[in-house]
Amino acid sequence: MAFTPGTAVVGQSGGPTAVINQTLVGVVKACLLRPELFTRVLGAVHGINGILKNEFVDFALEDPANLEAVAATPSSALKSVRRKASKEDCEQIFARFRELNVRAFFYIGGNDTAETAHIIDEMARAAGYDLACVHCPKTIDNDLRVTDHCPGYGSAAKFVAQAFIGDNLDNRSLAGIKINVVMGRNAGWLTAASALARIYPDDGPHLIYCPEVDFALDAFCRDVEAVYRRLGRCVVAVSEGIHGPGGAEIIALSEVDSHGNKQLSGSGALGDYLAEAVRRHLARVMPDKKHRVRADTFGYLQRCFPGVVSETDAREARLAGVAAVEAVVRGERSCSIAFQRFDDPYRVACFTTPLASVAKETKPLPRSWINEAGNDIVPERVLPYLRPLVGELPRIARLAGIR
Amino acid sequence: MAFTPGTAVVGQSGGPTAVINQTLVGVVKACLLRPELFTRVLGAVHGINGILKNEFVDFALEDPANLEAVAATPSSALKSVRRKASKEDCEQIFARFRELNVRAFFYIGGNDTAETAHIIDEMARAAGYDLACVHCPKTIDNDLRVTDHCPGYGSAAKFVAQAFIGDNLDNRSLAGIKINVVMGRNAGWLTAASALARIYPDDGPHLIYCPEVDFALDAFCRDVEAVYRRLGRCVVAVSEGIHGPGGAEIIALSEVDSHGNKQLSGSGALGDYLAEAVRRHLARVMPDKKHRVRADTFGYLQRCFPGVVSETDAREARLAGVAAVEAVVRGERSCSIAFQRFDDPYRVACFTTPLASVAKETKPLPRSWINEAGNDIVPERVLPYLRPLVGELPRIARLAGIR
Repeated sequence: MAFTPGTAVVGQSGGPTAVINQTLVGVVKACLLRPELFTRVLGAVHGINGILKNEFVDFALEDPANLEAVAATPSSALKSVRRKASKEDCEQIFARFRELNVRAFFYIGGNDTAETAHIIDEMARAAGYDLACVHCPKTIDNDLRVTDHCPGYGSAAKFVAQAFIGDNLDNRSLAGIKINVVMGRNAGWLTAASALARIYPDDGPHLIYCPEVDFALDAFCRDVEAVYRRLGRCVVAVSEGIHGPGGAEIIALSEVDSHGNKQLSGSGALGDYLAEAVRRHLARVMPDKKHRVRADTFGYLQRCFPGVVSETDAREARLAGVAAVEAVVRGERSCSIAFQRFDDPYRVACFTTPLASVAKETKPLPRSWINEAGNDIVPERVLPYLRPLVGELPRIARLAGIR
Repeated sequence: MAFTPGTAVVGQSGGPTAVINQTLVGVVKACLLRPELFTRVLGAVHGINGILKNEFVDFALEDPANLEAVAATPSSALKSVRRKASKEDCEQIFARFRELNVRAFFYIGGNDTAETAHIIDEMARAAGYDLACVHCPKTIDNDLRVTDHCPGYGSAAKFVAQAFIGDNLDNRSLAGIKINVVMGRNAGWLTAASALARIYPDDGPHLIYCPEVDFALDAFCRDVEAVYRRLGRCVVAVSEGIHGPGGAEIIALSEVDSHGNKQLSGSGALGDYLAEAVRRHLARVMPDKKHRVRADTFGYLQRCFPGVVSETDAREARLAGVAAVEAVVRGERSCSIAFQRFDDPYRVACFTTPLASVAKETKPLPRSWINEAGNDIVPERVLPYLRPLVGELPRIARLAGIR
């Protein structure tokens, strides 16, 4: 079906990534190249909030050279929104689209973002209004279905890997137990990236806990103790999303209250709780020694740290934006952009998948990528998957004379 | 006085930095170039612990090419130690030095490290044993006296600046209040580096709290509220070392106990406490709105993050190591290496200063570099000082169409 020329609207939604503006600029530049199809190219400020409030950026007025600098800048340049669209929101959005003669809507974000695009798409269909709704994937969590991996993940994984490389060196120089809490509410993809930090056989992280396996505090303490007895030190990667059987919270409500909140990121509560549990355990089983136990929560730094960007991720994020426009030009009306992966040499090809196949549910780290004990990843599965997405990491060397 | 040829020993002490091995390799390579003076070049493993336990690396056996890779690797390659030398330790160290015919001791570290070198130096003097004791400065805290700045600081400051650039972009895209806790127990130098993240007039950090000014929780909450009312968001930099009048702890003991420990780093307790205080304050003064308040504690990532290294810092750290050996060759017996700074163009020259002038006490951020209200730095003082030490930061761009 030929595309009805009209206005294109692009928006960004959900948490930022280091490369989300590559996708934005990919969409914008590809649209600007076809003024006969996209008569105006507008950016919605704060995602659907901008559509509801009529706050748009007109990309015809933006300096093309500055656009490239924006592409290289982390975090949503159009600003973002966490709002999940209600039915009323979608009706208002659709009314605005008619008003502005919007014929293409590109929404960059995760599974909730795909869901919003999906609802608006169905509304347009029901009204017989020709509108292309395309979701462009974005999430450091890497938990979108269908696609091999998500733009934003490679750079966040690079940050996590570099953080663990540094922290392992720190821990090796001043021994102790170090627990690092990594983002990822539902999926262990980002936590698994900590394994890239292992260069020498005794390098940490020595233990990795993902939310795909139920977490047991006593087993955790015994795991830490075993590594600590063997190496005299222990670096641990823990996903912020770990939970007990049936999704039971690790920190009981009363303890959460002392921190005043239940959100996972932007709080050191989980790390502090685990460190204290290890401290108590070691005081009991190894009472004759002083134990140095610390916890860091990587927090928001992980998701859009400037200067720690995977080149592959940046390139692919741009590609996803361009592919979204190409899909519309080809005549697609409703889709999400996904990556098919090829290896030897590594490369991706974009394809489209129905919005419903990406919306709502997320994709966990496969159970077979986690070891049986649930305290480590399976390197042969995780590392070949991850390495091309992250790219080169800083080279680390040791003195030969240190045993 | 001519140097008595003999063994050179080098060690690393205290917390790691991203460039501490540049200084190590600077010392080692300069010594290896003069085998007529330094008949052996040994590295003490875990600082003075290695001397006490007779654990050394013989640098004659290390591959020179690998040494360069070690120089570029963060965190003490010889491993470190937090042990403050007792009088008995020093006596044992001195006995070992006689045994190994050690004639030059290079100790890389902060003020406690200088103190240890100072004690050993005095012991050698009293015994009429010819020993050169040289302290090479190192600390991300930048709080050593005499020197203009310390190796390790520039790279940590770069990490903090980049972290705030990213976090400010994050906060701008999804508004709220964000508190970031930065290392620095006694001095606000590293916290002050957050100001480098301000590129546009409304960029954070909007408030900066250093330990040089007494912290008052109520004033803090009112400061945050004022910025939040003005901009709709607020990014705050807080030193982990903030305290009330007379050094009073911010977190009362009972609250520290719920976290099980009192150490500042490796715990999210302070950030969580401040976030909760702001949350309660806003719930009282702005009850009709939901407020998003988060805290991150940058933790150990700040001190030796691989890949975020100031080139100036790396170069100067190497220089400090070379200058230490040159001082000994020139005939100095007891000194610490310090930087004199020149501007337009920026450069440093090394000079030596007595160990006693660097040992023990630290150097705070001058009060005149902090604004009168104690909630910000004075940009005209801090930024020209910092910029050359940190070097170039990632370029950030905005869309022109966003007001």
